[in-house]
Parts: sequence; C-alpha cells; structure tokens
Amino acid sequence: MENKNLLMIPGPTPVPEKVLLAQAQHPIGHRSPEFSEIIGEINENLKWLHQTQQDVLTVTASGTGAMEAGIINFLSPGDRVLVGCNGKFAERWADMSDAFGLQTERINAAWGEPLDPKVFREKLEADTNKEIKAVIITHSETSTGILNDLETINRHVKNHGEALIIVDAVTSLGAVNLPIDDWGLDVVASGSQKGYMIPPGLGFIAVSEKAWQAYETAKLPKFYFDLGAYRNSTAKNSTPYTPPINLMYGLKVALNMMREEGLENIFARHERNTKATREAVQALGLPLLAGNDAASRAVTAVAPTTVEAEKVRSVMKKQFDISLAGGQNQLKGKIFRIGHLGFVSERDVLTVISALEEVLRELGHETMTPGAGVAAATRVFAES
Amino acid sequence: MENKNLLMIPGPTPVPEKVLLAQAQHPIGHRSPEFSEIIGEINENLKWLHQTQQDVLTVTASGTGAMEAGIINFLSPGDRVLVGCNGKFAERWADMSDAFGLQTERINAAWGEPLDPKVFREKLEADTNKEIKAVIITHSETSTGILNDLETINRHVKNHGEALIIVDAVTSLGAVNLPIDDWGLDVVASGSQKGYMIPPGLGFIAVSEKAWQAYETAKLPKFYFDLGAYRNSTAKNSTPYTPPINLMYGLKVALNMMREEGLENIFARHERNTKATREAVQALGLPLLAGNDAASRAVTAVAPTTVEAEKVRSVMKKQFDISLAGGQNQLKGKIFRIGHLGFVSERDVLTVISALEEVLRELGHETMTPGAGVAAATRVFAES
Repeated sequence: MENKNLLMIPGPTPVPEKVLLAQAQHPIGHRSPEFSEIIGEINENLKWLHQTQQDVLTVTASGTGAMEAGIINFLSPGDRVLVGCNGKFAERWADMSDAFGLQTERINAAWGEPLDPKVFREKLEADTNKEIKAVIITHSETSTGILNDLETINRHVKNHGEALIIVDAVTSLGAVNLPIDDWGLDVVASGSQKGYMIPPGLGFIAVSEKAWQAYETAKLPKFYFDLGAYRNSTAKNSTPYTPPINLMYGLKVALNMMREEGLENIFARHERNTKATREAVQALGLPLLAGNDAASRAVTAVAPTTVEAEKVRSVMKKQFDISLAGGQNQLKGKIFRIGHLGFVSERDVLTVISALEEVLRELGHETMTPGAGVAAATRVFAES
Repeated sequence: MENKNLLMIPGPTPVPEKVLLAQAQHPIGHRSPEFSEIIGEINENLKWLHQTQQDVLTVTASGTGAMEAGIINFLSPGDRVLVGCNGKFAERWADMSDAFGLQTERINAAWGEPLDPKVFREKLEADTNKEIKAVIITHSETSTGILNDLETINRHVKNHGEALIIVDAVTSLGAVNLPIDDWGLDVVASGSQKGYMIPPGLGFIAVSEKAWQAYETAKLPKFYFDLGAYRNSTAKNSTPYTPPINLMYGLKVALNMMREEGLENIFARHERNTKATREAVQALGLPLLAGNDAASRAVTAVAPTTVEAEKVRSVMKKQFDISLAGGQNQLKGKIFRIGHLGFVSERDVLTVISALEEVLRELGHETMTPGAGVAAATRVFAES
C-alpha cells in the first residue's frame, strides 16, 4: 500500500498535517512587515521553548551547521576544548574542533555508555591556569540512544568558572527538560527536524551573556554563521540573510502546537513513550543498548542477539512500512533504533511494538511470549 | 482581499502550486533508498541546468552560505582576490573575503553601472607573479538590476591562467545563459528562491576540475561548508548532513518543470519579460537605473524623479497587493525594483505594468500617457 509510511526514526520525525499545509502557502517577501510579525511570534515562542530570556538565533542550516555556529563564534585558534565522545555525533564535534584548529581533547566513553562526569571534574579542577575555554557535550547522543548527564557535567564547568559549556541538544531540546537559564548553559544548538516537529532546514542556537562576552574576543573567521549579525537582526524581528520562508510558516504553527501542549506535558509524553518502548522491547526478550539511567528520550537503541538488526528493519519496512533507524559506524548492523521524538503519540508506540512482535515471530525469535511487548507498553501507559 | 499577494520581487519569487504541494508531503528518511533516488534525479537535472558535466553540490543554506562555500573551499588566508563591487551583494562578498583574511582588492563601479572588464584585464595582466588567486564577480547584481559582463571578465581571467573565477549567479542562474563548462567557470553559486522557482533554503555550487585542484591545497578552515564531503556524498546520491527533505521534494518538481520548458525557452521568456518591463516603464516616463546593455534578467530597477519610489511601492501594495522591492543601502528610497525572475509569465508583467499606470496616476505623475505602459509591453510580446 502506497503513501502510508510511519516514520519512527530519530529525525526527520513525523510532521503534523497542519504544519505541512502551512508550508504549502505561497512565500511572501521576507522583508515585509507581515513576515516580520511571523518572526516576532516565532522568536517569543523559541524563548519559551528554550526556557531562556535571551533571544534564540535561527540559522538556515542543518543541526551540524547550528553546532558549527555554536563553536566558531566563541573560540579562537589554539583554544583548548574538552569534547565528550561517546557516539557518532559527539565525534563529529571533535572532528569539527580539529578542523577549526582548536586544541581538542576527547573525553571518551564506550558507544552505548554515558560520559563519566567525574573525568570532566578532574580535568577541569586540574586546569588551574584556566586554559580550557569550552566543554562540548552531546546531550542526547542519537547514534546510541544515550542521554548524557549534562546537569552534573555543567556543574563542574560552572565550578571551573572560565570554560563555556556548548551543548548539542539536537535530539534533546523539546524532548527532555533543559532549563537553559536556570542551569546557566552557554550555547545550546538544535535542529528543526527533531523535537520541533517540522522538516529539516533550520538550526537554532541559544547563547548566554557569558558566551556573548567570549564572542567579543573570539578570533575564528566567520561570516554566514557570524552570530553577531543574527543577534542584531533577531532583535529587530528580521534575519541577516534570506530565511527559509516556508519552513518558518511551519515552525510558527508547530511552536503554537507545542505551547498548547505545554512543556511539562511534552516532556512527560516523551518520558512515557521512552519507558513504554524500553519495557516492551525487554519484555520481548531483546537487549537494550543504553541503561535506564542514561536513556535518551528521543530514540531507543536495541541490540538483538537472536535476530539480525538489519533484518528487523527490512521486514518492518516491507511488511508494515514502518521506518526504523539502523546502527551507524561501529554499530552498523548491530543495533536498530526506534525513534520516539517529536510528533509521536502513545498510539505510535503501540503500533511499532505490535508490529515488532510480528516481525520477531517471522524472524524466528523463539524466546518471546506473544503479546508481551504490547502488554508491557500498555502497563506503562496505564501507570503514568 | 486576503491571500491574493502577487510577488514581483527578485526573490523569493512566485512558486508553482505543484511545487508547494510537493513540499507538503510527509518527510521520509533521508538515508532511505527512496530518498537516494530523489537525490539522484535532482543531481542529473542540476547538471543539465548548470550546463556542466560536473556534479553540482547542494547545501542547506541561503545564497550567502552557498557563496561562502564557494570562496572558503578554494583559498587560503592572505590570498589576493579581486572582487567586483557595484552593489550590495558584491560588497557582501568583499566583506566576506575580508572576514576570512583574504587580501581583498575591490574593483568598484557606481551602483547602477556595470563593472568595467578593462580594469580586470589591466589588473590581471599586471600580475605577472600570478598572485591573484581568484576573481569574484556578481553576475546579476540584484540590488541594482545590473548584469555584469561575466563572459568578457572571465576571458581575462582565463588569460591570466592561475586565478579562479568565482561567480555569484544567485539571480542569473536559470534566467540568462550561463554555459559553465563552455566558458570554463570555476565556481558558480546560486540559491533556491530564485530561478529555481522554489522557496529559500537551498544553495547550489558548481565546481570545475581546476577549482577542485585548488581545494587540495586551500587552507581556510571549514567543516559544514567543506565541499569535499558534499562531493563524496553527491557521487553516492547522498548528503553529508541532513538535507531539507521537503524543499528537495519541491526542487525535484521544479527542475522537471524547467526541463519541460527547456533552457532556451526559459532564457527567452526572461529576456522578453525584461524587455517588456523596461520598455513599459520608459513609456510611462520613468527612468531606468541600468542601461540596456547591462540589464539584469531578474529585476528591473526604476529610479523615478516625479514620484517617490517608496510611495509607488506602498500604494502598489495597498491598492493591488503587488509586492515590489525597494532600494537597498545607498539606493534606499531612490528606486523601486520590479522582479521578473523565475515563475513569472507575460501575464504577470502586464498585470504589474497596468497596476503601475494606476499607481502613477494616483500619485500625480502627470507626464504619463494613459495606456502607454501596457501598449509598450504588448508590443514587445507581439514582436518576440
């Protein structure tokens, strides 16, 4: 059956129909008062979503572009930075830091394990000369389904006093509580095709006062991603360069949907869907990659031993037209990943779990009790 | 009357309804075979549109981002570059070159005049040490409606032998003939909300073999805009980072529409609409900013003396809901600009001209013969 795909990957995520239809409107001039009004409304709602009093800056780029803007605006060549590395995206930020000539120190953890905050504490406490200029952390590591303990690591950064904390919140923002001003996070980057419930193409960067001070002396060359220009334009409900007008139409609608649902409810929904997915997968006798204490709210990585991960994906696609994500890099072929980020309801979780039961049955996964997955998921929903 | 805006600015341009509706489809995974097929089709059509055998690279960014990619991938700090400066966008590229530490030499012409190829010839001939690494030219300068003589300037660059020619073709690609391989253009950057007939959010960069050789030794730092990654991915019908999936849906449809119309027909339509607009404006007694030999096919700048340019725009918007562009920077308030780029038909030109007559009448522009504008435009259409 055509045109009936269910997208259960950690981005792009499903997009509400009214967002899609908003994007189908004719573009208007981006320098018109009408569009300025749209930008103004979006900016207010972005501040609400980011739990910050500062303007959130919007760039036309993928999440990688937003992270680049988050790094190059606040640092100078040769600056020492610590980068938490426990997955594909974290390693991308370390490579990026290398590419810009930063003195990059990778703080590694195994893929599937969270970063150890103690290692950061030790490095930061030992740095009495205050040479560490930034700590770069991937909050939710999409490649492994790990949620790193940003709150604790950030506390150590705050005790250091000098270093900025730069956060990849691409699959955590709008999924899990991230009180930017309360925690004093300096730079938080994210992307539209995630918790925002709109298609890819927009990146967002929240910037603290302290980071803006660092901006004044930062020497890495920049132009398109020079956030000073975005700060000036944002204050005037404008943009330095042409924005992706139709994506902005969609963003406006999506942010209003989020405001209507409320931050607490959004976070609770993601937590419920995460828990239901994890308990169901385990009830079906499949091992999870991430432990309970470090489970991403965006994606659950499953590391099956009795069936092949890629077979689960291909049968799931062929039989039910449900798209799951595979493993990346060293985890390729070893895991499959179920996305539950953004516009995903309890019904979607039940759908994917019941389909998974059927797929596992077909693949001869014999240790399974039929119905156990759905039973576990509904129990979670009933209890929460 | 609501929802009846006619967009006659040089970007964003009007978007065909079937492109808008294509963008309203649910996103699919960007790493799926289905999406890879879409990328493959787009890539073939981009090569056709660019008249090149090389892969054209697509970045998620505005035209400014595409130009940045076109500059930073092929140059090193301290490299001497000549930048043709006769408008807002040209000056942006000069500022960008400064921001990246290039030794930037501005070759100025008045805003509203074309660049003088002779000055480039003299500079290039005098450079016997081959220190000039690139010449950066804005082909169609959107802020003034000037089409620079790229063909001649490029010939001088070719005689120099060492320098690359880097072209901002943002409002010329898909509007006027630009045979990239035939002329041997090295880097040609453009943006989606222009001749492509889709909303903003995508940038395109065509790269010659010679430019790829320069890439190997170019030392400006880069990551998100590192075109080597895009080259590798494009060859596999993929993208290095998440592409704006829904814009790509639209691009696919728009490129097919362009192929159906044919390059020659597209260029002829733009030439006809340009000529009709210019003759109509003159027949109404209003001076044009650009001369006939240097008229952009994307936009016509009008410099009225008997009426205020901003009043023309505001009455046009209020009375007829037609959006015209204003002047920028030093031309603010002195000109208004009529866009005829992309999805613009003869009917649209007649519409804006007939509305302009009424606006001029209301503003007391007394030297006008009623009907003269439409008469001039229809004469052009009848003759061509």
